[in-house]
Amino acid sequence: MNVLIVHAHPESASFTSSMRDAAVDTLSADGHHVRVSDLYQMDFNPVASENDFMGRANEDYLVYALEQRNADSNGLLSPDINAEIEKVVWADLVIFNFPIYWFSMPAIMKGWVDRVFVSGRFYGGMRFYDRGGLRGKKALVSVTLGGQPHMFDEDGVHGPLQEMLRHLLRGTLGYLGFEVLPPFIGWHVPYISGEARAAILDEYRACLRSIDDLETMKFPSLGDFDETLRPKTLKG
Amino acid sequence: MNVLIVHAHPESASFTSSMRDAAVDTLSADGHHVRVSDLYQMDFNPVASENDFMGRANEDYLVYALEQRNADSNGLLSPDINAEIEKVVWADLVIFNFPIYWFSMPAIMKGWVDRVFVSGRFYGGMRFYDRGGLRGKKALVSVTLGGQPHMFDEDGVHGPLQEMLRHLLRGTLGYLGFEVLPPFIGWHVPYISGEARAAILDEYRACLRSIDDLETMKFPSLGDFDETLRPKTLKG
Repeated sequence: MNVLIVHAHPESASFTSSMRDAAVDTLSADGHHVRVSDLYQMDFNPVASENDFMGRANEDYLVYALEQRNADSNGLLSPDINAEIEKVVWADLVIFNFPIYWFSMPAIMKGWVDRVFVSGRFYGGMRFYDRGGLRGKKALVSVTLGGQPHMFDEDGVHGPLQEMLRHLLRGTLGYLGFEVLPPFIGWHVPYISGEARAAILDEYRACLRSIDDLETMKFPSLGDFDETLRPKTLKG
Repeated sequence: MNVLIVHAHPESASFTSSMRDAAVDTLSADGHHVRVSDLYQMDFNPVASENDFMGRANEDYLVYALEQRNADSNGLLSPDINAEIEKVVWADLVIFNFPIYWFSMPAIMKGWVDRVFVSGRFYGGMRFYDRGGLRGKKALVSVTLGGQPHMFDEDGVHGPLQEMLRHLLRGTLGYLGFEVLPPFIGWHVPYISGEARAAILDEYRACLRSIDDLETMKFPSLGDFDETLRPKTLKG
């Protein structure tokens, strides 16, 4: 299996970085090919803008998604975007490894999503969810946070973490057609002992070794909707 | 009322920018004081990093939230962050005006959230939701997107947009203590006529004029949870 790890943490010695390293070691030892996009180390530019295109379909008015299509088709995407697209195309599994910032990704990773998952090649028209351009590939979100599991129970103060991450798990990865694995969550990380951290790494390694056995998340099937995206079976 | 509009769109002539202008004009005409943070125009840096601190509590290991606290207390935050904090403190209403990118904010605005809503001053310990540091202020998310309302019905292909935006509406703005207004949504923008766009602007102006009458979103009250954040009344 080819595995791309997209990693973002502002501290290179962080526990989140140890999770990245554990994934590289575990997956490599099992014979998989692993590449890492370490966004802070790469000084990755997260800002979607006109600078992403070496030529434009419309020089006067920027519609970012339309220029993504035009530039991708005509070899006019910025080289830093093309380099990441090549890794996505190569990968059978993409891991997003980050600390939760405001119940989402750090901005540097959000910008990777904004700029690399280009319209046209990866989605567009009726190609999304189970018809998305990345169907056949798997995605795993592996995160660290300060909170504890009970805060994310159904009746917990925040409600389920998967609901907070819906924009990413469903709205981004599911939308693109990925088979999305249940997120791996390193709980309460800033407050726990070295032994507890080591236990999380063991649990993460076990998760990575069992990826083929994990049940993926359920998202809509476009076959259940008509050509205007209305449900085929309207509720009475 | 003091109003801060945080705006992000890579095209200065976009419809989203017309919404920003409509808000400035309407609110100013009604006697409110309005300031705009136009993040693309400011070339705002969205990447949370060690560069945000002119001095550190711990030079060897970066815990971003702890350094936010230390730097904010000791006047060591980067000037671009301090300038935005000052606007947030000044504002009675903060409007987040942006095009939906992947069911969330463009990265340049996510980075504004990551860097400006500093730990300690605005939240921390048991100060969140109805005890958050920004209680007493209002927040409005005003967005544009390509989709149509039926795609976001309860049985629509994406489910409710508010659920996709839960990380922002509840996990960020509600968490900080804002009274969060129902989001204003400019639907199907790339595909509609000039007349239909003008109608959205009219609707937006009416929304802004009625802000005091709008019912705010409901989020948890920390009084319903104990000191470990477990619900006080456990379900049988």
